[in-house]
Parts: sequence; C-alpha cells; structure tokens
Amino acid sequence: MDRGLAYGDGVFRTMAVSNGKPEFWLKHMAKLTADCAALGIPAPDAAALADDARQLLQGESQAVLKIIVTRGLGGRGYKPPDPATPTRIVMRAHWPAYRPEMATEGVAVRLCDTRLGLQPRLAGVKHLNRLEQVLARDEWSDPAIAEGLMRDSDGRVIEGVMSNVFMVKDGEVMTPDLTRCGVAGVMRGLIAESARVVDLTLSELRGADELFLTNSLIGLWPVRQLDGQAYAVGPVTQRWAASLAKLRATSRDEFPA
Amino acid sequence: MDRGLAYGDGVFRTMAVSNGKPEFWLKHMAKLTADCAALGIPAPDAAALADDARQLLQGESQAVLKIIVTRGLGGRGYKPPDPATPTRIVMRAHWPAYRPEMATEGVAVRLCDTRLGLQPRLAGVKHLNRLEQVLARDEWSDPAIAEGLMRDSDGRVIEGVMSNVFMVKDGEVMTPDLTRCGVAGVMRGLIAESARVVDLTLSELRGADELFLTNSLIGLWPVRQLDGQAYAVGPVTQRWAASLAKLRATSRDEFPA
Repeated sequence: MDRGLAYGDGVFRTMAVSNGKPEFWLKHMAKLTADCAALGIPAPDAAALADDARQLLQGESQAVLKIIVTRGLGGRGYKPPDPATPTRIVMRAHWPAYRPEMATEGVAVRLCDTRLGLQPRLAGVKHLNRLEQVLARDEWSDPAIAEGLMRDSDGRVIEGVMSNVFMVKDGEVMTPDLTRCGVAGVMRGLIAESARVVDLTLSELRGADELFLTNSLIGLWPVRQLDGQAYAVGPVTQRWAASLAKLRATSRDEFPA
Repeated sequence: MDRGLAYGDGVFRTMAVSNGKPEFWLKHMAKLTADCAALGIPAPDAAALADDARQLLQGESQAVLKIIVTRGLGGRGYKPPDPATPTRIVMRAHWPAYRPEMATEGVAVRLCDTRLGLQPRLAGVKHLNRLEQVLARDEWSDPAIAEGLMRDSDGRVIEGVMSNVFMVKDGEVMTPDLTRCGVAGVMRGLIAESARVVDLTLSELRGADELFLTNSLIGLWPVRQLDGQAYAVGPVTQRWAASLAKLRATSRDEFPA
C-alpha cells in the first residue's frame, strides 16, 4: 500500500561506502532533504538515517548504501496525505564489480534512443520514477558498453543512464543544464561549481576534446569511445579524476561517529 | 528490493467491483498484458489473477480491485533481469465515496499547472511512474473540485489526473491522442472506438458544447464547470453515460466463474 510502490512517490540516494563509511554523507543528506522538499515529503531525521547506516555497515569495508524515502501510506488516490508519514528504507548492497581500468583507460558508451521527457517540476530530483532509465538501459546488453547517453525529447544531451556527463572543449569544462529533466548527482555538484552549465547538442558533444561521466559509485569514468568515435583520456579529465578521488577519501570524515 | 519500488518498474489496473464481480475483466486483462509487453515484463497468468480476485472478493458487493505487476527482483541497477520473475499484487479497497449527483449533474474541474512530459515509449501505459499525477493532484484541496485537467509540455490537453477526457462539438465526440503521453483507460477505449482522436488545444476544449470524464471507477462524469466556465450536461454525454452504465453491468459476466 506504500505510495513508493503505487506511484513511485519518493526519492532515493545511492552512496559509496569505503573504509566502512559512506562518502559525502552531508552532501547526500542535503540532496535528500532538497529532493524531499521538491516533492513536499517531510525529510527523515538525518541522525536516524546515520544510526541505520552505522548498524548496516558494521564490519563492512567497501559496499553500497542505498536510502529510499517514500511519502508512506495514505491519501486519496493520487492526492498526497497531509501530513504524510514517510517511509524510510536503508539498504546495504555489494560493491559492483567495476574493473579498475574503467576509471583509468575509460569506457565505451553508446547513444540511447529512449529520450527523457521534459518535466521541470521533477528535474534534478533523484525520484523513484525511473522507467525512462530502465528502458534506456535495456537497449543494449553488450558488456563492452559501460553506459548510454540520453537526450531529452528536444534532442539536447542531458546525462548518462546512471551518470552525469561532462565535456571538455578548449580547456573549458561543460555539463548539461538539468532544469528541464535529468538527475543532479552529488559528484556532478562537485565539478559543476567550476564548470559551465550549458544546453548541449549531440554535434557539440561529438566535437568534445574530452568526455567523462560521474556518479557516486564510479566516481569518474573517462569516455574513450562514443558509438565508435574515439576520445583521448585528456589532462582535464585526469585532473578531475585525481581531485574527486581525494575528495572522496576526505569526505568519509563527514559521517557522524 | 523489488524493482516496482526502486524504479516504478511495473504496471497496474484499477477495477470497479459491483455485485461481487470485477467489471470489464477481459478488457482489463488485455490492457494489463499489453502494458506488460510495453515494458517487456512477462504478463502474469490471467487464471491466477482471477483466483486471487475471487478469493479477495468473497462476500464483497461493491469494492475496488487493484492489480500491480512489477518486474520483480534483480537486474544490475537499471538493467532489467532476463528472464524476469514478475511480482503480482492483488488488493481490495473500499469503494470511494463519490456522490451520486457527480454522475448526473456533473463536476467542477480545474486546469492543472503541472504538465505531462512527452514520452512516446510509455504513452498510453498505466505504469507505476505517477509522480506527475501526484504533483498535479496536490495543486488543489478544495473538495468542490473533483478533477484537474492536464496538458502536455507543448500545451495540448491530454487527460484528467485520474481520468480520460472527451469533448463534444457539433454532435461529434473527440478525445485526445495518447501516443505522446497519457494513460489510455478501459472506459476511454469503449468510447474512443466511435470518437475522433485529436490533438486538442485549450481553446478548442473551452469551446466544447459538452465535456465529460471517464475512468473505471467513476464510469462517466459530465463536466459542468471548468475554472468558472459552465458547460451543459448535454445529450451526447447523457447517451454515453447510459451506454456505459449498461456495458458495465453486462461486463460482469466476463469474469470467469
């Protein structure tokens, strides 16, 4: 009966756990709170979530921590209950088997046919309505392809199925505007502060000097190939990869002891 | 861990139960099968669903029957498991307290600000990604407003938050095209066979002689007011209301004994 299942009425976070601690805990909590606010869901108590996480992560070194917050039970049909009593779910999963060379040598990606519909009211939010990503990810099964790039219904390049995308041109770092659709990840936030946020056509993307992808688990993957077109793992990409790696390590201290 | 919660990776049906039997069982099963196919989910066995329903409806006269089918567990992130082992959930709920005059005298509706994103791959499908409806329904709490009308991101009138919409102009029945977005309900299907499927602007809608809404629970509600503009409960609306009422009664015989 939970509205999370009935309507996808909720949000989630996926966090890397290393050395037994979630990375970027405070940033993830801030994003969770902001995403809850976007849906009008009262955000759960961060201290309670930290307790849940600590309990789940006992004796773990490297893992994935996932938090789901739904609007909970009730309401009349689509009408949200007021006040809502949110459901919080905290889960631990195995660390995915990413090969180390994906981060160093880069990955091959493809362009997806499935488009992202425009929905400014949900843009940027990591909510539970993810069928567009499911359809896009189902377009290929070749394990040599690590990720797919998605465009919106007007043709702008927006993001990867499970990652944010960055391009470098003449030394400048650019990343797509996510005010119409897309998911604004924590890793993206770290780089976007010093990047130009743009509308990006496919031909602009193809003309990039460097391309890379980010999310909380992979950190940064250079793109070495997009549908057959090759890209170098360039200096800007390498600098950001090194910066993110350092930031990830430091960020473990954010987790409340 | 179910993908229905994680991604809204599934579909659902909402059926009226009268005289202890679900209405339009075969049409709902056909739509469920088609919607599952649209997502690549193996459709559950209709005989098993009928068994579930019979069990839940013992001793019930008027109720709501809801069926959720998700892709079940598994997969790697967004990538669907292959083969999938779907989850089926069959639920009974109380009949909603709709006042009888809503069907005879009509209802007041409003125009929603929340737009429907364009997503041809999911258009028509009653899937579990329903945040647009949740946001739209949350726009008003005045109980005198029974429904809200939604436009797509390009401004075309598509549907009600929980219903399909029809307009009558010079005796002709028209209903919006649902190939870009929207949910094609079973009631809509009954009328759409003899209606013209069109792209509908808001000003065309405002110029209608008659307006009405349909879904499996309400059957047909005439619209007597749209944001202050009054409409008559006209002859075409009344004819369709009478036809649907008869069809609903007959359709109970479709349910396997």
